[in-house]
Amino acid sequence: MTNIEYHDAVVRVRYAETDQMGVVYHANYFVWFEVGRVELFRVLGLEYKRMELDDDCFITVAEAHCRYRHPAKYDDLLRVRTRIAEAKNRVVRFSYELFREADNHLLATGTTVHVICGANGKPKMLPEKYRPLFFPPNPETAGTSQRGME
Amino acid sequence: MTNIEYHDAVVRVRYAETDQMGVVYHANYFVWFEVGRVELFRVLGLEYKRMELDDDCFITVAEAHCRYRHPAKYDDLLRVRTRIAEAKNRVVRFSYELFREADNHLLATGTTVHVICGANGKPKMLPEKYRPLFFPPNPETAGTSQRGME
Amino acid sequence: MTNIEYHDAVVRVRYAETDQMGVVYHANYFVWFEVGRVELFRVLGLEYKRMELDDDCFITVAEAHCRYRHPAKYDDLLRVRTRIAEAKNRVVRFSYELFREADNHLLATGTTVHVICGANGKPKMLPEKYRPLFFPPNPETAGTSQRGME
Amino acid sequence: MTNIEYHDAVVRVRYAETDQMGVVYHANYFVWFEVGRVELFRVLGLEYKRMELDDDCFITVAEAHCRYRHPAKYDDLLRVRTRIAEAKNRVVRFSYELFREADNHLLATGTTVHVICGANGKPKMLPEKYRPLFFPPNPETAGTSQRGME
Repeated sequence: MTNIEYHDAVVRVRYAETDQMGVVYHANYFVWFEVGRVELFRVLGLEYKRMELDDDCFITVAEAHCRYRHPAKYDDLLRVRTRIAEAKNRVVRFSYELFREADNHLLATGTTVHVICGANGKPKMLPEKYRPLFFPPNPETAGTSQRGME
Repeated sequence: MTNIEYHDAVVRVRYAETDQMGVVYHANYFVWFEVGRVELFRVLGLEYKRMELDDDCFITVAEAHCRYRHPAKYDDLLRVRTRIAEAKNRVVRFSYELFREADNHLLATGTTVHVICGANGKPKMLPEKYRPLFFPPNPETAGTSQRGME
Repeated sequence: MTNIEYHDAVVRVRYAETDQMGVVYHANYFVWFEVGRVELFRVLGLEYKRMELDDDCFITVAEAHCRYRHPAKYDDLLRVRTRIAEAKNRVVRFSYELFREADNHLLATGTTVHVICGANGKPKMLPEKYRPLFFPPNPETAGTSQRGME
Repeated sequence: MTNIEYHDAVVRVRYAETDQMGVVYHANYFVWFEVGRVELFRVLGLEYKRMELDDDCFITVAEAHCRYRHPAKYDDLLRVRTRIAEAKNRVVRFSYELFREADNHLLATGTTVHVICGANGKPKMLPEKYRPLFFPPNPETAGTSQRGME
């Protein structure tokens, strides 16, 4: 299960996401990245909402970056390619590539860094049961996994 | 304190709030109405966040309506005039008028109906200490107040 | 083509759409209604973006209403059932029912009223070529169609 | 006028901006940064909307970064401190510090990089009349200004 290198989620640009420049407002790319993360989790066999509800495990955002190459436009069908770029005991880094489905054009790239916290906002270790999903069972990288590097 | 007929809150239109029609996306008016409610509460001596934190009292939205007359545009300074249109034991109705500050033009009107709930989502009575703010001390309207009718 | 009574579009609730009450922020329901309209247009053989680009035809929002029955929650899969409730020469009214996919529970109902305008913001007639899609070819209702009444 | 080192804009956190973690959803920080830029422009004597309308000059976003230190919460009053970190002929970089007004706590830092474009999306030179605002009249830094370095 853990040998998924990346996952592609598809989103269609909503009118609400555009601005008066006639393109998507830049902050919305981070919402799509979130969709990408959640769908990657799902194919890894993990429902993020269960992490919050069952395990008091919140994946908070510590850092977010996006490089905008070409604007996404209204009604575009987009593919958010999401990778776990790095996973440590308390920190996970995801990387993203955003493609326009129609012509496979790369519109944006991004990364987000996350800290695992309890509902109290305090950092905590990723629960044991989730570790195989984030850490491929590779003895050489014990405790830290590098995969899908940007 | 309770004889405030309405309160005017001022918001400036953000770029994020526009869409590719070059005007504000319609759903955002409801966000401004929320700003109007919260600021009306504040002048009534009530911090809404304290209601949630201290009194397990959430003002959930049961109904929302907006009539758009003229479009709000980017960078417009707007005045959200908010009234408590009706208050019952578990239900509060607010009405709104949205004016463009520059020329006092009425851009939109709206109403929202709210049910008071606990964090569990179950309806509950408005705590005693908040009642004078919502119900003006008028013996004739005991338990129900009509004010600032649209 | 025009005898489609309604169309169901599916959306999944995003984390961005929740608020600190632990449910979806009410204004976001109007964004889903927009998704419903656009997807209804698509199955009717109409790309809304082409109306704007090719025909200078913008479907502006004149009125919006939503009745919230049960809260939508994070990660819920939702079905937005959209109908053209009424169509006149310059005005179209849509109605919506929002269901939770898991148990077919009705979470919300709504309507939006739209005026057809040019890019200049002035009302205009719906172009001839789009009329059969909005007006079923029924001689009895010439010029006005009532379908999918709420 | 050009010797303003930074500008502080004040925003209050809206309910719409929170998520079910009970803090502000991370993408919204970029909306506040936009408010910061626009208000910095205003104190520099420049209305951004006039740049678009009068000069076909759009400040598009090429890159956005935010480092989240402490969460902003509902109803917090925030100060967005915005600086022009770097200005070249076609590219402007802004840096941001986000403070909680109540205790002056630094909640987040960020940068955005912008390319000046026409409505056609093509990069263009910053019009002459705006140059003194972005480039302090310093012979040593002819054509490039470094100020308010992060």
